Amino acid sequence: MQTIRWNKGRVVLIDQTQLPQKLKYIKCTTCEDVAKCIENMNIRGAPALGVAAAYGLALVAYHSKVTSKKELVHELEKNASRLRFTRPTAENLFRAINRIISRVDLEDLSVKETKDLVIREALRIAEEDKQINRAIGKNGAKLLKDGSVVLTHCNTGFLATSGVYGTALGVVKVAHEQGKRIRVIATETRPLLQGARLTAWELKREGVPVTVITDSAVGYTMVKQKVDVVLVGADRIATNGDVANKIGTYSIAVLAKEHRVPFYVVAPTSTIDLSVRSGGKIPIEQRDANEVIFIGGKRMVPKGVKVLNPAFDITPSRLVTAIVTEQGIVKPSELKSLFAR
Amino acid sequence: MQTIRWNKGRVVLIDQTQLPQKLKYIKCTTCEDVAKCIENMNIRGAPALGVAAAYGLALVAYHSKVTSKKELVHELEKNASRLRFTRPTAENLFRAINRIISRVDLEDLSVKETKDLVIREALRIAEEDKQINRAIGKNGAKLLKDGSVVLTHCNTGFLATSGVYGTALGVVKVAHEQGKRIRVIATETRPLLQGARLTAWELKREGVPVTVITDSAVGYTMVKQKVDVVLVGADRIATNGDVANKIGTYSIAVLAKEHRVPFYVVAPTSTIDLSVRSGGKIPIEQRDANEVIFIGGKRMVPKGVKVLNPAFDITPSRLVTAIVTEQGIVKPSELKSLFAR
Repeated sequence: MQTIRWNKGRVVLIDQTQLPQKLKYIKCTTCEDVAKCIENMNIRGAPALGVAAAYGLALVAYHSKVTSKKELVHELEKNASRLRFTRPTAENLFRAINRIISRVDLEDLSVKETKDLVIREALRIAEEDKQINRAIGKNGAKLLKDGSVVLTHCNTGFLATSGVYGTALGVVKVAHEQGKRIRVIATETRPLLQGARLTAWELKREGVPVTVITDSAVGYTMVKQKVDVVLVGADRIATNGDVANKIGTYSIAVLAKEHRVPFYVVAPTSTIDLSVRSGGKIPIEQRDANEVIFIGGKRMVPKGVKVLNPAFDITPSRLVTAIVTEQGIVKPSELKSLFAR
Repeated sequence: MQTIRWNKGRVVLIDQTQLPQKLKYIKCTTCEDVAKCIENMNIRGAPALGVAAAYGLALVAYHSKVTSKKELVHELEKNASRLRFTRPTAENLFRAINRIISRVDLEDLSVKETKDLVIREALRIAEEDKQINRAIGKNGAKLLKDGSVVLTHCNTGFLATSGVYGTALGVVKVAHEQGKRIRVIATETRPLLQGARLTAWELKREGVPVTVITDSAVGYTMVKQKVDVVLVGADRIATNGDVANKIGTYSIAVLAKEHRVPFYVVAPTSTIDLSVRSGGKIPIEQRDANEVIFIGGKRMVPKGVKVLNPAFDITPSRLVTAIVTEQGIVKPSELKSLFAR
């Protein structure tokens, strides 16, 4: 099973809004299809968004009818702008788009060669993500012991990437494969319930015991149960180690500090935004209030009442024990060392 | 509009599970009807539960066909046991039941006189709750200034009491009536959404500006917005000042400490359990997992996955700035002074 794949001029992705009730696939034939899937969160998760954006551009290249390289570049750039407009926070999306566009700009190629380059680069981004997943899982698994209880937020499993492991959940899966008995506590993650719907579904398939709690039960759980470690993903990491991740991550980090539970952020280095010095500069997406207002089609918040629906928050680096990447586990203050090599 | 009222042998209460979509009333003619309404949370809120339980016993007295006082006492005690079994955490429920039963036991009265006593005592509990509401609101309003931003959790308005003010929300309403411009941030309060459904509805009716957020957005909100004070209610308070309140309260208290926001608990003294020294001894109700699993009739958590659904958590007294009661504002460490008078 794959979250997203390239299939001869089509992009096939799992419709994550339908899980856990239905496992359905969406077929995209245009970059606009992909952009809409990103906006509607049929696909989500920072690494998966990077791959989706890359495949969006691959669709443009594959189906383009233009005859000059100039026209093709224009078409790619127009679609790149569209993709950049979908969701503002996940760094991986911008990184993948920029990587492809800069390659196209650099190389002196024919139309046919340029098309091939775009498709090849997109496939490479997806393939790299798989390998990175595995390396992250292997690096992070050292943090877990036999019997460890992991608290996690949102979904950071294979559904959030193009791989089979995922990021934070990949760490759990690798430790589980190594024979360690790991137990996971998953927050439901309002408003879209990625924890209840996706994380619980993935872990159940893998045979990892998982308990779902409401987001507000994290404090209670840390008091009443042994929580050994918090593992979360990231949508963007500033160079000072501040982390943008799903709304609620910051609250969990503060509770982890209060209970002296180590708090690890698990993400590929492509999530680190070298142009952003601190979390305050990371744009936070405000999503449609209706995600909070309506439940099962029923209005829960009275008409005329204001609703704030930020999709992410910033966890300051001082609350982050370490960041687990494919290149190793680093303290937030040492993030820059990854790029000095 | 009244949350719950006595009407000649019937108890009429607002069905709070239907709000904000429908304002419907439920008529109870037996104590069992009332007990079911408590269990199903058609009525909720610690002070309202005290009144509901008292009215439940009043229904027993009103409709009883027995001819001896002994039989009547037996009938009352049987129903008292049923009511005690409904919800384990709210102290006010036990307090009201015990108050009525102990009066009946004490006094040497005929069947008719005993019946009258029970009904009179129940009406008195409801009337006292109204007066206490007003006193709490007046005491607490001193804490709010013109322009204050209040963050609150769950519902502590008139719907949670038999009065017209409420407890924590009563403080807001009195300050609002005094002409202070107060703005409220209300957490939605999963799983049953008392914040989104009830608090927003009450404040909108009163003309107090309110913004609803998900429970996990409290940290974000404290970073991004000015939050001057947290006001929450209580279901039971131990003599050391530890507070049992709606799940999520503890997390908010930890965040309030992190952001140096004063954290006030607002409750009548009938919420204080003199028999319980610390929060660890307060029984925490575990509610049906289906409240978390199903949303709008749809299964969100996959089958076979465990769900933990505690209804309350304990906020240790060290995180409580002060407790606002009808007798004044006291520090948690000085709670006992209220009873030394």
